[in-house]
Amino acid sequence: MAAALTGFCDAYLVDAPGAVGAAIRYSLLGEGKRLRAVLVGAAYTAAGGTGDVSALAAAVEVVHAYSLVHDDLPCMDDDDMRRGRPTTHIVYGVAVATAAGLAMVPLAARTAAGAARGLSLHAGTPAAIVRELMHAAGGAGMIGGQLLDLEGEGRPLALADLERIHRLKTGALITASVRLGGLAAGASGEQMSAFTRYGDAIGLAFQIADDVLDVTATTDQLGKTAGRDIALAKSTYPALLGIDGAVSRAVALVEEGCGALQDAGLLTPQLEYLARFFITRQS
Amino acid sequence: MAAALTGFCDAYLVDAPGAVGAAIRYSLLGEGKRLRAVLVGAAYTAAGGTGDVSALAAAVEVVHAYSLVHDDLPCMDDDDMRRGRPTTHIVYGVAVATAAGLAMVPLAARTAAGAARGLSLHAGTPAAIVRELMHAAGGAGMIGGQLLDLEGEGRPLALADLERIHRLKTGALITASVRLGGLAAGASGEQMSAFTRYGDAIGLAFQIADDVLDVTATTDQLGKTAGRDIALAKSTYPALLGIDGAVSRAVALVEEGCGALQDAGLLTPQLEYLARFFITRQS
Repeated sequence: MAAALTGFCDAYLVDAPGAVGAAIRYSLLGEGKRLRAVLVGAAYTAAGGTGDVSALAAAVEVVHAYSLVHDDLPCMDDDDMRRGRPTTHIVYGVAVATAAGLAMVPLAARTAAGAARGLSLHAGTPAAIVRELMHAAGGAGMIGGQLLDLEGEGRPLALADLERIHRLKTGALITASVRLGGLAAGASGEQMSAFTRYGDAIGLAFQIADDVLDVTATTDQLGKTAGRDIALAKSTYPALLGIDGAVSRAVALVEEGCGALQDAGLLTPQLEYLARFFITRQS
Repeated sequence: MAAALTGFCDAYLVDAPGAVGAAIRYSLLGEGKRLRAVLVGAAYTAAGGTGDVSALAAAVEVVHAYSLVHDDLPCMDDDDMRRGRPTTHIVYGVAVATAAGLAMVPLAARTAAGAARGLSLHAGTPAAIVRELMHAAGGAGMIGGQLLDLEGEGRPLALADLERIHRLKTGALITASVRLGGLAAGASGEQMSAFTRYGDAIGLAFQIADDVLDVTATTDQLGKTAGRDIALAKSTYPALLGIDGAVSRAVALVEEGCGALQDAGLLTPQLEYLARFFITRQS
């Protein structure tokens, strides 16, 4: 994945004005788990795909990296550490980091559209791939969720409100990652439904685990500032359900997601492992 | 065009969380000349296209409207009037306006990808259309130009620097509008080169005319605050070339652009009229 991202940076960033291109590159090439990219590949393989899906996976990581750059800005969560390094705006300044984030959405769309060229796809699939990724990145996905999240800081939220925020903010891109792998492999409608249920379930489980880690892990383990949710007076799953209750809910969601894939004949060892890793990870 | 934008709002905005969807709709449905949309259609027709290209034209207007929303923000040009109405952040607040702008880029990508479905296109064309539009919207286009523009405020720029900013900030999307019409119509490589030269020339002429209007027109005529460039200590063409010199340069660019189309057999009355209107408009 690191090779795909580097190649991608070389291919697309040469024409972006100096500091913006450098900031995009910085935000993309830091250490990261690349879980969304791995999900794209795992779903693609599970649905019978045999091509090289890494450029499409890179497009998903660009959207994810964009959300991190903007999430960390002073006007958002105001964080100065990410993936064990200073955040993008600490290194390049707020104006350049903001512009870099803004430029990463069209970059991701171009990459997804270009990625389609490297795969054998039906005629309508490249457009469907772009729509899927941009839906997750847009107002009905990540950006809508970021705004709701920002509005929710400092006041208590009910469980349903919290789930809505996370389904948009984190869940939409995770579900899209799985679905994109399916789309690229030409999955059937029934298979796509199973991928959606799996993505939705593990996406929410991921966020619950994130909230738990924010309480239980150290800044050193996380590579970003621990205890940030409490500092920002954010509503979280541990606050609403207790740590044990939150962990139980995450486990149930993973079972639910894997069950959906099992029923559709899509549960590979890799997809099962990924679902479990989503909630057992230590960072 | 207004009908296409309204239909588009109905189709795509229903799922964006309340205020973000409303702010996007507000920014899209204000009065506007829709010059970029008209350019898409004019180039499409000139290159022999006979389908309905309005959805693609709407996608270009979404990118343009996004740039206006963000340009007007307090952290950018800090303007409170646009198209004769309060700017989006005055009505919806800065956080919602920022999120709405952010959400409009993926929205435009989805629209462009979806628009391809309504036209008879070669297999690779939908992806090429998305790449073209997103290139113009990205770091090597509009966003890069906005950042350079922001960095240039309050200090004198040489003519070459000013042209570079405007080629990115305004010119990239105007050229892309023309090229998108050509792409959708299946234009040849030679025809696309002519469209590029025409778009580049009239895009720069458009900005020169904009700078001149900022000095010579009233706020009432413009529907936005006049004299803003001087207030922001921006470098402009009238400041560098004088008003007469700036007007002469704009006229020469229009001749150059129309000549390129003429040589390629693409100069329709509509494309010639548009080029002239770009520099004779009063608002």
